Amino acid sequence: MRTFFCLLLALCSLVRLARAQAAMDLMPMPSSVEQEMGFLTIDPSFSVSVSGAKDVRIQHAVARFLDHLRHQTGITLLQMEVSRSPVATLAIHADHASKEFPQLGEDESYTLEISDSGAKLSAPNTLGVLHGLQTFLQLVQNTADGFAVPAVTIHDQPRFPWRGLMIDVCRHFMPVAVIKRNLDGMEAVKLNVFHWHLSDNQGFRVESKVFPKLQELGSDGLFYTQAEIREVIEYAAERGIRVVPEFDMPGHSTSWFVGYPYLASAPGPYQIERRWGVFDPAMDPTQDRTYKFLDEFIGEMAHLFPDAYFHIGGDEVNGKQWDANARIHVFMKLHKLENNTELQAYFNKRVQPIVSRHGKIMMGWDEILNPDLPKNIVIQSWRGQESLAEAALQGYSGLLSSGYYLDLNQPAVQHYEVDPMSGQASELAPEDAKRILGGEACIWSEYVSAENIDSRIWPRTAAIAERLWSPQELIDADSMYRRLDATSRRLELLGLTHNAIYADMLRRIAGSDNIAPLRTVADVVEPVKGYARESLAATEPTSLTPLNRLVDAARPESMPAEHFTKLVDDYLAGNGTPDSEAEIKSLLTQWRDCPVDLQDLADKSSLLQEVMPVASDLSALGIAGLQALDYLDKSEPAPDEWRTTQLARIEQAETPGPAQVQIMVATPVQKLVEATSVAAPASPAAQ
Amino acid sequence: MRTFFCLLLALCSLVRLARAQAAMDLMPMPSSVEQEMGFLTIDPSFSVSVSGAKDVRIQHAVARFLDHLRHQTGITLLQMEVSRSPVATLAIHADHASKEFPQLGEDESYTLEISDSGAKLSAPNTLGVLHGLQTFLQLVQNTADGFAVPAVTIHDQPRFPWRGLMIDVCRHFMPVAVIKRNLDGMEAVKLNVFHWHLSDNQGFRVESKVFPKLQELGSDGLFYTQAEIREVIEYAAERGIRVVPEFDMPGHSTSWFVGYPYLASAPGPYQIERRWGVFDPAMDPTQDRTYKFLDEFIGEMAHLFPDAYFHIGGDEVNGKQWDANARIHVFMKLHKLENNTELQAYFNKRVQPIVSRHGKIMMGWDEILNPDLPKNIVIQSWRGQESLAEAALQGYSGLLSSGYYLDLNQPAVQHYEVDPMSGQASELAPEDAKRILGGEACIWSEYVSAENIDSRIWPRTAAIAERLWSPQELIDADSMYRRLDATSRRLELLGLTHNAIYADMLRRIAGSDNIAPLRTVADVVEPVKGYARESLAATEPTSLTPLNRLVDAARPESMPAEHFTKLVDDYLAGNGTPDSEAEIKSLLTQWRDCPVDLQDLADKSSLLQEVMPVASDLSALGIAGLQALDYLDKSEPAPDEWRTTQLARIEQAETPGPAQVQIMVATPVQKLVEATSVAAPASPAAQ
Repeated sequence: MRTFFCLLLALCSLVRLARAQAAMDLMPMPSSVEQEMGFLTIDPSFSVSVSGAKDVRIQHAVARFLDHLRHQTGITLLQMEVSRSPVATLAIHADHASKEFPQLGEDESYTLEISDSGAKLSAPNTLGVLHGLQTFLQLVQNTADGFAVPAVTIHDQPRFPWRGLMIDVCRHFMPVAVIKRNLDGMEAVKLNVFHWHLSDNQGFRVESKVFPKLQELGSDGLFYTQAEIREVIEYAAERGIRVVPEFDMPGHSTSWFVGYPYLASAPGPYQIERRWGVFDPAMDPTQDRTYKFLDEFIGEMAHLFPDAYFHIGGDEVNGKQWDANARIHVFMKLHKLENNTELQAYFNKRVQPIVSRHGKIMMGWDEILNPDLPKNIVIQSWRGQESLAEAALQGYSGLLSSGYYLDLNQPAVQHYEVDPMSGQASELAPEDAKRILGGEACIWSEYVSAENIDSRIWPRTAAIAERLWSPQELIDADSMYRRLDATSRRLELLGLTHNAIYADMLRRIAGSDNIAPLRTVADVVEPVKGYARESLAATEPTSLTPLNRLVDAARPESMPAEHFTKLVDDYLAGNGTPDSEAEIKSLLTQWRDCPVDLQDLADKSSLLQEVMPVASDLSALGIAGLQALDYLDKSEPAPDEWRTTQLARIEQAETPGPAQVQIMVATPVQKLVEATSVAAPASPAAQ
Repeated sequence: MRTFFCLLLALCSLVRLARAQAAMDLMPMPSSVEQEMGFLTIDPSFSVSVSGAKDVRIQHAVARFLDHLRHQTGITLLQMEVSRSPVATLAIHADHASKEFPQLGEDESYTLEISDSGAKLSAPNTLGVLHGLQTFLQLVQNTADGFAVPAVTIHDQPRFPWRGLMIDVCRHFMPVAVIKRNLDGMEAVKLNVFHWHLSDNQGFRVESKVFPKLQELGSDGLFYTQAEIREVIEYAAERGIRVVPEFDMPGHSTSWFVGYPYLASAPGPYQIERRWGVFDPAMDPTQDRTYKFLDEFIGEMAHLFPDAYFHIGGDEVNGKQWDANARIHVFMKLHKLENNTELQAYFNKRVQPIVSRHGKIMMGWDEILNPDLPKNIVIQSWRGQESLAEAALQGYSGLLSSGYYLDLNQPAVQHYEVDPMSGQASELAPEDAKRILGGEACIWSEYVSAENIDSRIWPRTAAIAERLWSPQELIDADSMYRRLDATSRRLELLGLTHNAIYADMLRRIAGSDNIAPLRTVADVVEPVKGYARESLAATEPTSLTPLNRLVDAARPESMPAEHFTKLVDDYLAGNGTPDSEAEIKSLLTQWRDCPVDLQDLADKSSLLQEVMPVASDLSALGIAGLQALDYLDKSEPAPDEWRTTQLARIEQAETPGPAQVQIMVATPVQKLVEATSVAAPASPAAQ
């Protein structure tokens, strides 16, 4: 209740703040923010002191903090050394060092008090200090009197203890540098679990010294050495982030079988899978040698990964290899296993004690849920709150990932609206509800490369991070989008490339530095949603298909399309201005003309050829919109026949083709055309 | 002669090529390029083999090459492993491994033959392979049939053996990551010497284990550990780049004296210098303890830096500490040293044997030239070709840096036109001429931070690199600029940030993501040239002055201003088109309106306040230009009085103020206004 009250206070103070000065673009929003009068100036004399627990991670965090502050302001900060004297601009105090590696359930709270004479950050342990430093950076503003942070008192702690990001490095490999910069991004938005999806049909991505053919034959040479794994774990721990490894079994495991075919339920030989989908190969759950292998392998990995949790995947076993194997049939009869689901449950029941013996808690996707397994396992739900609530009722802990799949190219607000405690979960008794630990954003990498992955993760993941950190009552989408925009800029400053890569990829597609005409198209399209990309592909895509096309460059959420939609809605509601009508016209004109502007380039670039039909559709929208505006300006209804023709053309433009992108401005143009059925909207130009 | 003939061939084939397809944007231009019919396609099956010398640097270079090729094309290249079988898309052969660390005068030539069925790169040693791989990358084009390289035969070798870039890391410290990415840039344009200016009044930047107070007291904690130095040297060697350290003495040495005041010619104590300029402190050349210290120190550094050359600076000793020291006067009389120049020569003559005893060849700036020193020393000339020629006549080797000072903010073409062999150097006999080893671009960092250094070095340094590598006869500025533009894009792909940082800095100045109005101003201004920034400063700048202003973001060479100038020239010469006249008008209108567009932001950002007078000047230019166009369109001469007023206002706009930027479009606007004195130019709109 206190949280909710503070939140209201926070929202009120934000409203006041918006009038007085630039808004505080905090994300995730702290649980309590009280704004006071005044500012603390940032100048070259800025200094930091640390008292309390001695933890080298705090020293490192302060060094990173100062680097970032320098980068944000361009101000030379001379006080590089962190003093232990309390006389400093920012005085940090941690009561205790946090655990050597972060652990589930550690206290992550902090208090940040800023006045015009100095700032105090205090926390029970290191983790709160890390979070508080990020909040401080988010408060830095460029004011009329120079760079400064507003006077404010913040008490903050997370709503959920498990706030994760899963990255699939199997379908496309992601080098260590990509992982590290995404860990930087995670720290900035207070996510605390990096779930590393390390093996799948398309690749086995970790060096095993016990079973070296796993990476030697199963990875195309694209894997992490154990030294690199340790480096990433250390890097994450410095940022308060746990690393949970996932080795998917018994399905999604073709890459294991290339080197070790005897693990599979059919003889082989096996090749690394290049296609996408659910495939037949699965481990043989009836052979003791399978468990002997897993025992040694899990032992090796349990030693490499310090986190208490070990993810065994367990999803999407189609059972075909089991069905086709007579010996497995005999085994199932013998053990009274009625079907493949029971056979997989048998597998899990044999793997769980192995995981446990190596000191780890087993976790897996929805499919592993089975009443015979001990209650301390964790279920990660790709199915939804219902299956999560069900697990909680049975006494199992769970995480939500349904609704947080970033590769489906949904707008941020759709993820933002997904709450782990909604639906059936909202009806749980408190003692059951507390088993819902949080959630994880997931990026599956069929159509995601090391190049464009940042643009698939960011900035949308920041909205999910807020959902998992901030009070449940915070649901204003406009506020979220405004703060997401500022967050996106800050993430780019941290070294993430989600914005920079857009222009780079457009330049490559255009084969030219002159990307303006291509950008006209790219700005208002999005990759097709959900799993539509598969069905629109001309030839079956594989892991070797280049990801260098318009669909790979286009942003999952087009803010220019959003902006145009709003302009049109305002115009049709009579709330437009002459400027906004001029802007609508100018955009429609650019769209109308884009095929002509692109033609010269298209003759020279193979990648532009598939863009031309999209440009032609966009051009049709431009023409329809301009004609509609003419009718509306003249305050005369358009002929029904014209409208019918236009609406048909708009529908056609809205339907994605082989370029696999969706034009996002068809709906507002359709509204303009539909508005011509009656005379005159309240357009300022027509008044 | 053969070179010249091949060059002509190359230029001819380039002309033919320009008609047939996208031009080859090679930079530096190879000494011989013969274009043939056809293309070699780049697809996922692309493979590389290496035969001949076994050198792990070639393996590493190929891995980097494949990474870059992937990045350039977005194509998944599966053949990660370099085979030794000759059946590969690109077959590389090196006769020998190059030296463990690159050395002056090693053969850097290579031959690259590309047909539609494959490519062959052969070289006498590793260095040629490195250069040839870069040339291959520059040939990659996005064609109508996909990514490809044209069929071509290239024979290439450098004109000069010493092609350097000096970076001053003293006035502002540059972290290792900044150095590394600039080494990547150097490799891309075939520069082969990184001259590291490591000590100066404002900082001592290397860890000494023998004299640890050098870095402990002389660096604000901003120095390279010896491990980092070794890492950079290794990184450079992998890219065929030598690393020459410079420790400036006996002047420019205040930072040494903070820890070791007994080295100075006055008692001290000393503080790290925060101001810019020439200062009094200088080593005491009359004390044996000075040479004992230098012997130990140079011994330590000679061991750390493997290159044969050791730079002792030697520039700008003002002699005031020597003049003020009676003991030094006595010493000079005793040793018959007439003046401070002779005293410095005495110092150099004592240091040179020390350097030599530690196995190194001494080099220094112009001032060290003295007939008593052995002929194997190298003179780096900041004074010009004349002093270089003079040194060569006396038997000394030399390098040109005059004309290559990047911090003076000159356009690329000005550097491009500076040839080490021009002026008096062109009259040298061949045996003397060969002592001119090449040149070095230099970036002094008074107004250059780790943040904006890339934008000060790139892309202009690529033009200097071409001057030092390519045949002397290559002088076409238009061709250079066209290729520089493509090179700039490629450098950004490599990880340099010269383009990306521009928008980042504008966003910070604007305090907003809406940088369009600020960009209108920033696009057409340049930092003031030469050393004018000092004289325009309101308060004395120091190393703590933030470099976060418009002048720090503005590019040293405004291509938009260049473009506008050309539009106006064409228009006034009667070669304009209706489109180009519309573009002129549109730009003038943006300029006219920019103060209004900026006003809202200016109220919120301290950094924008100094921009407003610049915007107001630019607005005046916009108004003058638009009015001039009106007169010209109407084919009537403007009143003399109007013209006089406008020209006065233009002159005022052209004069830099406290913002320390120069508006680069005053001249073309002035031409427009001057053209109104007669009736009607041959404007298409007026025809």
